[in-house]
Amino acid sequence: MPETLPADSVGLVTPQTAHFDDPLALACGKTLPAYELVYETYGELNAAGSNAVLICHALSGNHHAAGYHGTQERKPGWWDAHIGPGKTIDTNRFFVVSLNNLGGCHGTTGPCSINPETDRQWGPEFPVITVADWVHSQARLADRLGIERFAAVIGGSLGGMQVLQWTLDYPQRIANAVVIAATPRLSAQNIAFNEVARQAIRSDPDFHDGWYDEHGTLPKRGLKLARMVGHITYLSEHSMGAKFGRDLRSDELNFGYDVEFQVESYLRYQGDMFSTAFDANTYLLMTKALDYFDPAGAHGGDLAAALAPAQCPFLVVSFSTDWRFAPERSRELVDALVRAGKSVSYAEIDSLYGHDAFLLPDERYQAVFSGFMKRVVRDLRLEGK
Amino acid sequence: MPETLPADSVGLVTPQTAHFDDPLALACGKTLPAYELVYETYGELNAAGSNAVLICHALSGNHHAAGYHGTQERKPGWWDAHIGPGKTIDTNRFFVVSLNNLGGCHGTTGPCSINPETDRQWGPEFPVITVADWVHSQARLADRLGIERFAAVIGGSLGGMQVLQWTLDYPQRIANAVVIAATPRLSAQNIAFNEVARQAIRSDPDFHDGWYDEHGTLPKRGLKLARMVGHITYLSEHSMGAKFGRDLRSDELNFGYDVEFQVESYLRYQGDMFSTAFDANTYLLMTKALDYFDPAGAHGGDLAAALAPAQCPFLVVSFSTDWRFAPERSRELVDALVRAGKSVSYAEIDSLYGHDAFLLPDERYQAVFSGFMKRVVRDLRLEGK
Repeated sequence: MPETLPADSVGLVTPQTAHFDDPLALACGKTLPAYELVYETYGELNAAGSNAVLICHALSGNHHAAGYHGTQERKPGWWDAHIGPGKTIDTNRFFVVSLNNLGGCHGTTGPCSINPETDRQWGPEFPVITVADWVHSQARLADRLGIERFAAVIGGSLGGMQVLQWTLDYPQRIANAVVIAATPRLSAQNIAFNEVARQAIRSDPDFHDGWYDEHGTLPKRGLKLARMVGHITYLSEHSMGAKFGRDLRSDELNFGYDVEFQVESYLRYQGDMFSTAFDANTYLLMTKALDYFDPAGAHGGDLAAALAPAQCPFLVVSFSTDWRFAPERSRELVDALVRAGKSVSYAEIDSLYGHDAFLLPDERYQAVFSGFMKRVVRDLRLEGK
Repeated sequence: MPETLPADSVGLVTPQTAHFDDPLALACGKTLPAYELVYETYGELNAAGSNAVLICHALSGNHHAAGYHGTQERKPGWWDAHIGPGKTIDTNRFFVVSLNNLGGCHGTTGPCSINPETDRQWGPEFPVITVADWVHSQARLADRLGIERFAAVIGGSLGGMQVLQWTLDYPQRIANAVVIAATPRLSAQNIAFNEVARQAIRSDPDFHDGWYDEHGTLPKRGLKLARMVGHITYLSEHSMGAKFGRDLRSDELNFGYDVEFQVESYLRYQGDMFSTAFDANTYLLMTKALDYFDPAGAHGGDLAAALAPAQCPFLVVSFSTDWRFAPERSRELVDALVRAGKSVSYAEIDSLYGHDAFLLPDERYQAVFSGFMKRVVRDLRLEGK
């Protein structure tokens, strides 16, 4: 945390925990008997309960989207660039809710939690969770917080898929949808990259079929490789080139297999950090949620038909150099929304930063995004709060 | 092998071995005291020795480019689509030489060979080989075969880099250069993918720092992952989508981590096959040769300056959906050749098949390629052979 908090920071925040005792029936056919969701809130809920915004996180994200957990925390939450007083998601106007999704590894019930039926960690026996399951659990959290209808549900990447699911499963409970750098379904190539990550983790001898904790090990090698592959797909070819090019770590080629190019060093570091900070079973689960997401699947591939239940206005945003979920995939969604007669604004942002651009500040991105959010404030008459 | 050999097949071929006792000084500073190169030839060398063509292989390729080794061989050599009587590289006109490169694992001296100084396998102590080292060793093979000057040197991908190196190191010994689906240097993203492959192999507990053979193991997990990642980069997003889409192996989602989508099954199969068929130390070495290749590096990044020694006409070919070595990279090379005042023909082939397109038959690709080769026949007066 900087010595003086910037005026547009939400400041120090404390995660909260909501315990749910009503069983949650999951898409896989299993039922979660009880569970806890860890979440943060920024801003204040108005008396009418009409100014709440839900933030949905991506693959490796969590509930800590803005502000600082303590003075020792070096970096703020993952979407601090966009959440705060006067920022795009203006906490002077909105009551922002950000949770760690079911199956996560940051406090919410997931593979690292104790299975009450066995008194051991769930581990690999934690049920596979789908995007629809998450949305269901998020709606229950909204009930708990006294939120009948969200002013907006917002997310990037896998988070954007949750937003889309909200418009289908709870059309009366979402007033606006912001779907950023997402896709209506994964391509074969997307699934292929996920499968490499899963194979890397599952073939690590320290994985022990997911029971690594009971074996006192961590599948660090596998998780590191999974993160390295993932990281390449988050960056654009251009941004990697601009950042590292063919720069060497030392002046000369070493003609060996130790780290040599800067880009190798960077990837190894990212992979090493992640390999002890994230849970492998959670990573597997998150990639499966990505693979399974396909609202058009139940409609013979007709996305416009699948979108029929949606009622709210959409903002869809994509980034020119995003090759994980390329602009074409957002355009597919926009075309289907238009065909289905929905209200949709679409912006394709020129950016050099690939998929990760959705996390970064960018002038046009912010202008489009905050313009949409100001319209939400106006339409819902949140000015006077 | 089919029961009846097609008329345009080179038929049954037998690899040969050339032993070299003159030490080879390598770019890394080490010297290879003696070595063997395994190679095949198709067609006949004419009396003038003027009709020889050298084929340079890519990362996982070898000397077996065309025809069959025996009646039991199911598939012909890797470039059989383009080499044979009446084919693009017409063995009625040309004497085709195809070798397994130094460091390979198909008979040529490499990590699996015995190091005469230690009487054990070279293993990880086999020196890192560069593209220039390969070209040096190929020139010696040409000497041995009585070839003063190749009518053409031809290669795709890493093979194309060898062609480029030939034009710089032996400009008098190459009459024509065909550089297909290549790049004048790897991007940071290319290096990053190679590094993931290397980390996958090197972090496999069965790798034993490269001494797996002495430990009676094989780093199959690592090599499988390396191949899976590589394979994704060889195919286009479109070809993966067209071939597999989101097709499932069975009718229902299994909500688990066993193979579920067809693309997963395909990748695992490719990885499994490769993990026992290819040598891990060779794979590492080949990826390093790719990373190091950068003729412009010694000229402050000025590729046109680096190309000054080249004298022969070039054919450069790229494929529209190749994202491993995209058309932009071939255009860089072509621009530099033009700036350097060289003769160059360039074709960008519309193809759906990504990087692998260079291995496949395609009407326009073959028309351009065979047109260039017919001009070679005419210019060198090889018609009357």
